[in-house]
Amino acid sequence: MIESPSPPAIDAPAVIADLRELEAITSGSEGAERLCWSGGWRAARELLVAKLAELGLEPDRDEAGNLWARLEGADRGAKALLVGSHLDSVPGGGWLDGALGVMAGLGALRAWAGARSKPPRDLVLVDFADEEGARFGRSLFGSSAVAGTLDPPELSELRDGEGELIDEVLSANGVELAHAPEAASRLEGAGAYLELHIEQGPVLEAEGASCAAVSGCAGVERHLLRFRGQAAHAGTTPMNARRDAALAAAGCALEVERIATRHGGVGTTGGLRLLPGIATAVAGEAELTLDLRHPEAEPLADMLSEALAAAADAADARRCVLGGAPLFRIDPIPFDEGLVESAREACADVGGRALPLASGALHDAAELARRIPAAMIFCASRGGISHAREEDSTEEDLSAAIDAFSRLVASAIAA
Amino acid sequence: MIESPSPPAIDAPAVIADLRELEAITSGSEGAERLCWSGGWRAARELLVAKLAELGLEPDRDEAGNLWARLEGADRGAKALLVGSHLDSVPGGGWLDGALGVMAGLGALRAWAGARSKPPRDLVLVDFADEEGARFGRSLFGSSAVAGTLDPPELSELRDGEGELIDEVLSANGVELAHAPEAASRLEGAGAYLELHIEQGPVLEAEGASCAAVSGCAGVERHLLRFRGQAAHAGTTPMNARRDAALAAAGCALEVERIATRHGGVGTTGGLRLLPGIATAVAGEAELTLDLRHPEAEPLADMLSEALAAAADAADARRCVLGGAPLFRIDPIPFDEGLVESAREACADVGGRALPLASGALHDAAELARRIPAAMIFCASRGGISHAREEDSTEEDLSAAIDAFSRLVASAIAA
Repeated sequence: MIESPSPPAIDAPAVIADLRELEAITSGSEGAERLCWSGGWRAARELLVAKLAELGLEPDRDEAGNLWARLEGADRGAKALLVGSHLDSVPGGGWLDGALGVMAGLGALRAWAGARSKPPRDLVLVDFADEEGARFGRSLFGSSAVAGTLDPPELSELRDGEGELIDEVLSANGVELAHAPEAASRLEGAGAYLELHIEQGPVLEAEGASCAAVSGCAGVERHLLRFRGQAAHAGTTPMNARRDAALAAAGCALEVERIATRHGGVGTTGGLRLLPGIATAVAGEAELTLDLRHPEAEPLADMLSEALAAAADAADARRCVLGGAPLFRIDPIPFDEGLVESAREACADVGGRALPLASGALHDAAELARRIPAAMIFCASRGGISHAREEDSTEEDLSAAIDAFSRLVASAIAA
Repeated sequence: MIESPSPPAIDAPAVIADLRELEAITSGSEGAERLCWSGGWRAARELLVAKLAELGLEPDRDEAGNLWARLEGADRGAKALLVGSHLDSVPGGGWLDGALGVMAGLGALRAWAGARSKPPRDLVLVDFADEEGARFGRSLFGSSAVAGTLDPPELSELRDGEGELIDEVLSANGVELAHAPEAASRLEGAGAYLELHIEQGPVLEAEGASCAAVSGCAGVERHLLRFRGQAAHAGTTPMNARRDAALAAAGCALEVERIATRHGGVGTTGGLRLLPGIATAVAGEAELTLDLRHPEAEPLADMLSEALAAAADAADARRCVLGGAPLFRIDPIPFDEGLVESAREACADVGGRALPLASGALHDAAELARRIPAAMIFCASRGGISHAREEDSTEEDLSAAIDAFSRLVASAIAA
């Protein structure tokens, strides 16, 4: 193999400037307003299309509404390298979630477009549609269509907060839900997928690390636990005669915390609905959400069985009946070993974390990893805050993370 | 003093028949619909007025909307004996709560109206307005006006679930809120107040007792406890980096249960609001309601200070900040010793509980007891259920309780 010339690096200040420009166009006083399929999201895409045009590139959309831009490589027979993330945000979101990966990917195209030679292989930017699922409650819409895991009939009844059917909203955006899975053809000839994203958690900041390779996405087990006791008058019902569903849920929640800690995973009981839910009545019913995550399948399964046993014990202890239902589950998704090692080296080279970090959140890369080798790099998040106006990363950390991503792209494109 | 003839007894089957008639007129498939100031409540009152007319009595209303009917006694100089309760119900309520006391009081008037002689003193039936407070959240409206504890400016901003101002709703029912306290004049010349009510709790049924004297109403301390932590992503936030407000509230709720049990009172944490309150986020804020009750002031004060300390400890344990505010408080109200002893003897005579029971719920009698000697008798409740369609008492228990109330009235009217 002939030695390539030194690959062009992503211009980090330009990426940050693009992110600031996007923020100026699509944010209000409550934060980023790029809810998928909305005007704010379309404005974000228009900006991206304009910036691609500056590189002489014209993107096209697939059947799921994802936007693709291809910079042709020297070897049209070689498998393409995909880079990207998503421009859509939650309502009142931050300036970096998703947008960082898209603008860093744009930066990679810009670097090669301005280089003396073509990239060794096609370099493709993808902006996935509706990663957040903030409007219809279905995350990873576009990337799951590409990965072949989207089942349109499962979504067909979904409505947004204003009662609009997903079908109608997508049609108005030129997407036919039934045809979305046809976007899977876009992975033909794709060799790998790389994504830069903010951590959205506090680990890197606490360690003083700017960035880290991501080993994979944790598996998730999400259940609704329903404790049924007996609603009763707060004044007239002796303590020993109660069947208090709220206290059963409280006991269960505290036990879930101990189980997650013991297994080195995370466990969250962040939603609780009490009936009747008033000061003057013992709660007769409590619905508690359970969200368990672990990067490995076996400990995750143990966490779930222990949590369900703890829920049963908590119900028994207060003579409540335990019901409920699974809400969502996904297996842990490890990223490609070789790419993770390249990402780890790239991060270490810029002074980032020496070891990969598991992602507790899901990302488009988790869907892509089902089909092709994939990897991610995380940039440190200030205070671990995301999905909020306060979401931020220092310019130093952003520059280091973009630099690491640039090295990872260079390594993968040359492989 | 000349020996009175044997006092006439209340006709228990007639009282039960009146209650069934009331139920037939004012209940739907969801239970009793006699929400105060509504058509159902007015229909209930029309029935009562018609039944008083059968006795030749014409009731009148005071400034707070309470209905009064007076059967003149032999000695117009003697202080009157008041009997009664309330006809209003919660939405979807039961057939006995409040109505039992009114119809038993009507039974007492009927007994004396049909007797050969006048009662030794005036016998007065009162049907208090809006005991439940189910519409505007202010319980004991009518009886507090009579007792002189109603402060109209405190209520003037209250609206019902449909946004109607209390002032307008009362006006439509012929009551001017500002003038309601003038109802206090009705206690001039009143010697005592007696009330029959269902227990609304499970104690008597569990003991196999039909009825019991009530020693007084428990004091109440009601607070809102607000735990402020940090909302965070359920997947990306390690367990040891969390400031989980929901778990702080859970720990506090379980400690409140232990505190109440230790002091022989009751403690309830029946309302909890989590923010953001979703499965995928650690709760950043939790608002927990605290309701503590005890028949004695000192243990109640101890329960409150221990519960607030437990809340502070639970907040500290998860690096949350504790806030909140008192919502409502009322001192324990013991009933008149002599009348309680008469009620105890009356209940024992009919095979009821040998000892008085403290009421954990508030009743109109608690307001009256601030001004004049008062006492109550409780009838056993099936399953301890009240404020629900399922509210019930056996005919045997009702008959025994009405008999005991009849004996108490006879004793008090002759005193």
